[in-house]
Amino acid sequence: MTADRRPIALAGIGKIARDRHIPALEDSEDWSLEATISRNSEVEGIESHADIESFLEARPDIDTISLALPPGPRTAYAEAAIRAGRNVMLEKPPARTMAECLRLEALAAEAGVTLFATWHSRMGHAVESAAARIREEGLVGIRIDWREDVRKTHPRQDWIWEEGSLGVFDPGINAFSILGEILDMPIALREVSMEIPSNRQTPIAADFAFTHPSGAEISGVFDFRHDGDPLWDMWIETKAGRFALRDSGSRLEADDGDVPGNQSEEYPLLYRRLAELVDAGESDFDLRPLHHTADAHLIGRRSIVEPFDW
Amino acid sequence: MTADRRPIALAGIGKIARDRHIPALEDSEDWSLEATISRNSEVEGIESHADIESFLEARPDIDTISLALPPGPRTAYAEAAIRAGRNVMLEKPPARTMAECLRLEALAAEAGVTLFATWHSRMGHAVESAAARIREEGLVGIRIDWREDVRKTHPRQDWIWEEGSLGVFDPGINAFSILGEILDMPIALREVSMEIPSNRQTPIAADFAFTHPSGAEISGVFDFRHDGDPLWDMWIETKAGRFALRDSGSRLEADDGDVPGNQSEEYPLLYRRLAELVDAGESDFDLRPLHHTADAHLIGRRSIVEPFDW
Repeated sequence: MTADRRPIALAGIGKIARDRHIPALEDSEDWSLEATISRNSEVEGIESHADIESFLEARPDIDTISLALPPGPRTAYAEAAIRAGRNVMLEKPPARTMAECLRLEALAAEAGVTLFATWHSRMGHAVESAAARIREEGLVGIRIDWREDVRKTHPRQDWIWEEGSLGVFDPGINAFSILGEILDMPIALREVSMEIPSNRQTPIAADFAFTHPSGAEISGVFDFRHDGDPLWDMWIETKAGRFALRDSGSRLEADDGDVPGNQSEEYPLLYRRLAELVDAGESDFDLRPLHHTADAHLIGRRSIVEPFDW
Repeated sequence: MTADRRPIALAGIGKIARDRHIPALEDSEDWSLEATISRNSEVEGIESHADIESFLEARPDIDTISLALPPGPRTAYAEAAIRAGRNVMLEKPPARTMAECLRLEALAAEAGVTLFATWHSRMGHAVESAAARIREEGLVGIRIDWREDVRKTHPRQDWIWEEGSLGVFDPGINAFSILGEILDMPIALREVSMEIPSNRQTPIAADFAFTHPSGAEISGVFDFRHDGDPLWDMWIETKAGRFALRDSGSRLEADDGDVPGNQSEEYPLLYRRLAELVDAGESDFDLRPLHHTADAHLIGRRSIVEPFDW
């Protein structure tokens, strides 16, 4: 802990806040968690506010706010914080809709504050190595394999099946965020098929293929009906050979040796990046992962499959 | 006809080209239609090419191309034209996906050519008057009523029911394009419900509501199951009263008198605007109508309804 840590507030004290944000902030050399904003939860020893308005009024000295709320209520919080001149860090996805994202971006530019749309999987330990290898060797293709048992990763979380949530694209958007980081050319979804349980609104599985300007074949599958530990892997072929980017970007497996991973670094790295952005007075608001997700819903072929119950 | 009309080529010689583009170009003081590009159709008296590559090679002197193709093949044509340094005008919607749009935008900026995403309904005779009235009087609410008999407006056009087509959003995106022109504040879809025939992929009807920064209530309905002539109307309430913007932006009805419409002006005005953009070396590539359409698919609640057959 150093004397010049910047004050920060965290809104939304749920599972992701306790698992990831708070431990990262406790160890941070950049930030000091000085307030939380949550209707239902508190963090022992930290000043607590029930809503964004009372926080903004009580603590004009805290000029950066991290929002770990779900996307539904998050946009109104982000808007209030930006209007009050505070820097804002947003959990993924940055908003429910493209139009909300563009509105936040315009408001932040007007207010002159930092807006940071985080994509935690990009901070995976091996993502940079994979990007360098693709750049040097030339891409032939990527096969994405993103499978998990929704009963374990989202136990009884009915919100994930409601319209406006993303279903299997909730983890899948993490794969899209890694693609944006390891590819230096723009890609667009060409074909998507989605399976939707007959009693739910959002997809339980999806298959997709992208077009890539150089003709590289990028395709994959997202599936919530997986047994056992999650698979969050990309199988990558370059002109020089094959390697795998595994565990949501945290580990690179190749014949010439592995780059070991450490998934717990993701959130510390996000908060490090936030400090750099605030220092530089810059924003980082990459919407491509959300574009691809919206595009999938726009062009996807839907099949109704058997009902899903916990 | 004047001596200094610019040469232009038109790709995609289907119904919209014959009904709208060719008459507009024949009467244009700015443009002279010197070539068509179409696998199946020709226009009497005009040089014809079967595909974009042979056209680009044969006619380096024609530096502007208008694409009246469906969005599926259109993006590849646009990309080839931009790479060859030609200015491009695109029928709505500008591409199948957001990612394709952003790619075209980046390519055009790199090539230094004009890119014009047209939204013909914006050129409706009364759209500007409606915008001025809303600005002066202050908006209270808009109710959108966009209904047509799909059997008459898209007779036996099965493509409209295939994934990647927009179903009832194909006409509906015109309403969204008018909203972008008459509102000076950004709006975002808040709630959408869609009805999809059990034997089809795209919606036959949709209900929706937007959030507006000032709290104005903007909502509407799109419906393909309408008897009789199409209704393409917006019922607008301002702090000073009510008026209607009817017939897809072409007519304004109010107590203090009507602004008469002339829908046939839309395409001449689009080609006028294209000439201005090319002269100025600028682009006009507003993606908001497509954002709202993608957002509707991303957050929309879907109900399966009775099958649709022609």
